Amino acid sequence: MSEKNLQVLLANRPQGPVAESNFSIVETPLPVPGAGQVLVRNHYLSLDPYMRGRMTDAKSYAKPMDLGEVMVGDTVGEVVTSNHPGFKPGNKVAGYLGWQTYGVAAGADLHVVDDSKVPLSSYLGVLGMPGATAWVGLMDICEPKAGETVVVTAASGAVGSIAAQLAKIHGAHVVGVAGGVEKCRFVVDEMGLDACVDYKAGRLAPDIKAATPRGVDCLFENVGGEIFDLLLGRMNAFGRIAVCGMISQYNGEGYGMKKMLSVVLNRLKMQGYVVNDYKDRWPLAHKELHEHLAAGRIKYRESVAHGLRSAPTALIGLLKGENFGKQLVKLIPE
Amino acid sequence: MSEKNLQVLLANRPQGPVAESNFSIVETPLPVPGAGQVLVRNHYLSLDPYMRGRMTDAKSYAKPMDLGEVMVGDTVGEVVTSNHPGFKPGNKVAGYLGWQTYGVAAGADLHVVDDSKVPLSSYLGVLGMPGATAWVGLMDICEPKAGETVVVTAASGAVGSIAAQLAKIHGAHVVGVAGGVEKCRFVVDEMGLDACVDYKAGRLAPDIKAATPRGVDCLFENVGGEIFDLLLGRMNAFGRIAVCGMISQYNGEGYGMKKMLSVVLNRLKMQGYVVNDYKDRWPLAHKELHEHLAAGRIKYRESVAHGLRSAPTALIGLLKGENFGKQLVKLIPE
Repeated sequence: MSEKNLQVLLANRPQGPVAESNFSIVETPLPVPGAGQVLVRNHYLSLDPYMRGRMTDAKSYAKPMDLGEVMVGDTVGEVVTSNHPGFKPGNKVAGYLGWQTYGVAAGADLHVVDDSKVPLSSYLGVLGMPGATAWVGLMDICEPKAGETVVVTAASGAVGSIAAQLAKIHGAHVVGVAGGVEKCRFVVDEMGLDACVDYKAGRLAPDIKAATPRGVDCLFENVGGEIFDLLLGRMNAFGRIAVCGMISQYNGEGYGMKKMLSVVLNRLKMQGYVVNDYKDRWPLAHKELHEHLAAGRIKYRESVAHGLRSAPTALIGLLKGENFGKQLVKLIPE
Repeated sequence: MSEKNLQVLLANRPQGPVAESNFSIVETPLPVPGAGQVLVRNHYLSLDPYMRGRMTDAKSYAKPMDLGEVMVGDTVGEVVTSNHPGFKPGNKVAGYLGWQTYGVAAGADLHVVDDSKVPLSSYLGVLGMPGATAWVGLMDICEPKAGETVVVTAASGAVGSIAAQLAKIHGAHVVGVAGGVEKCRFVVDEMGLDACVDYKAGRLAPDIKAATPRGVDCLFENVGGEIFDLLLGRMNAFGRIAVCGMISQYNGEGYGMKKMLSVVLNRLKMQGYVVNDYKDRWPLAHKELHEHLAAGRIKYRESVAHGLRSAPTALIGLLKGENFGKQLVKLIPE
């Protein structure tokens, strides 16, 4: 094969917001699979907020990437050659091959997926890490009861949209927070949420209050900062907060949260979590999400960037909330 | 009896810090116990930070007091007359009779205490609500393991001192935060903690860092504000935070906490709680604390104000951290 592998590397660490200059793009020879390994041509790369954390060397749940490493990321693709009995050329597989057009992995680090009934890309969204993240945070940490008020921030995003629809399926009154009229329209009209607060409308505090007349029993938090602070002030007694992420806080000095007294006054539980700590829950999460998706109970949006060279710009956009739904990079031509 | 009852009433609600003018002191006739009731002469009144919350009408776990009501509070005293078969004159009893020299309560709301081996006042401290509060927060929420680092703020206070010594008893490396050289000396030399950070020394951030070289696994939080924020930044992965109180935050707009991202990065659990929600745990807490106290494993200090008329000043001092250990008001002459 004369085909080359295109790769995006971490060139240097961001100081503040991520910039194009933090990445370098290189062409390398196609990797050759060793014993027990599989060569995969990647069709889609998933872009996710956690990548921002991996680019820095601050203390975190994930060890920082080394400079010069291929950027990490979930992928789905097709087996090219296999030295592992579980895989044959043409199999569709999900893995963690990173920002490159081809990749090699041990068979144990890949799994075959069935894209006959659902799109291949859904294994990076509803049926992948974002889906499991939403399920664990909502079902195991928030534990919403029918009739309770659940608020989900970044409600049209890859994780938030699933958490919000799961909450609806379980009978909660669900309010989304999203940026812009179009996202809020999607959240209410297509996802079926009860209300949406547009944080770009400039009336955040009164809009949050108006959307939660009975307070908030469960908060599924993806954003952090002022939105989180205002919602903290709306929590009901014995409220639960699943802190999935704080995308507004990844670039430096944190927003000063003024309503922490609510944690005492309302006996709140706040739990930060990382889905990889809940691997034992993934099979159940996956099974339920697959059923909901196949039955049309979960709607989702994708933003698809085309070509690996567009990945840095797409990640920068994601971190600013410019995407709409799950952010993917399509790595093969139409 | 020509004896009168002296009472402190909530005259008006504090705007900002509590002031003497928020209280009024009245003399009333001795109350007369009805059927099933008991008349008690109070020996000690307990002053506690939660009282600040009861004086306001902000949404909270406790319903606000009405204006003109006798200030609420735990008391210990001696039965004067009894219309209940479980009590006879001379019995020492604990109850919730409030800021007054005498009080009447149903027998069901009092319990006889044994002050032959421990001081009567300890039923307002180690063996009362503060002890149960410390035990529940430490044992049920923090769940410290031997060798972990536990930090307790307000470490010489009524609740903090017990939580800290319980953590030592369970094999943790325990660091206290207290205000002033004298309190820190007590925390280390008498309570036996491993280190103490004096928040009045003016080097809060570096001192906290130096005292927690292996980070913080469990935080027993009583203070809030900047101290809480800095400790949040020191938490280890899977850290637990029992939020017992935030005495620095009771007077108005909250301190802006900048390190909330730590909740995600370190998968923290933060739990606000009120000890009355854990009544089923009190018997075990009481039993263990009684054993520790009788065996000399728990040391405590008391600040005793003399006479009911000194109670407002003493509460104001408590809310500023001017007390040392459990704040009591002695209601009978020496």
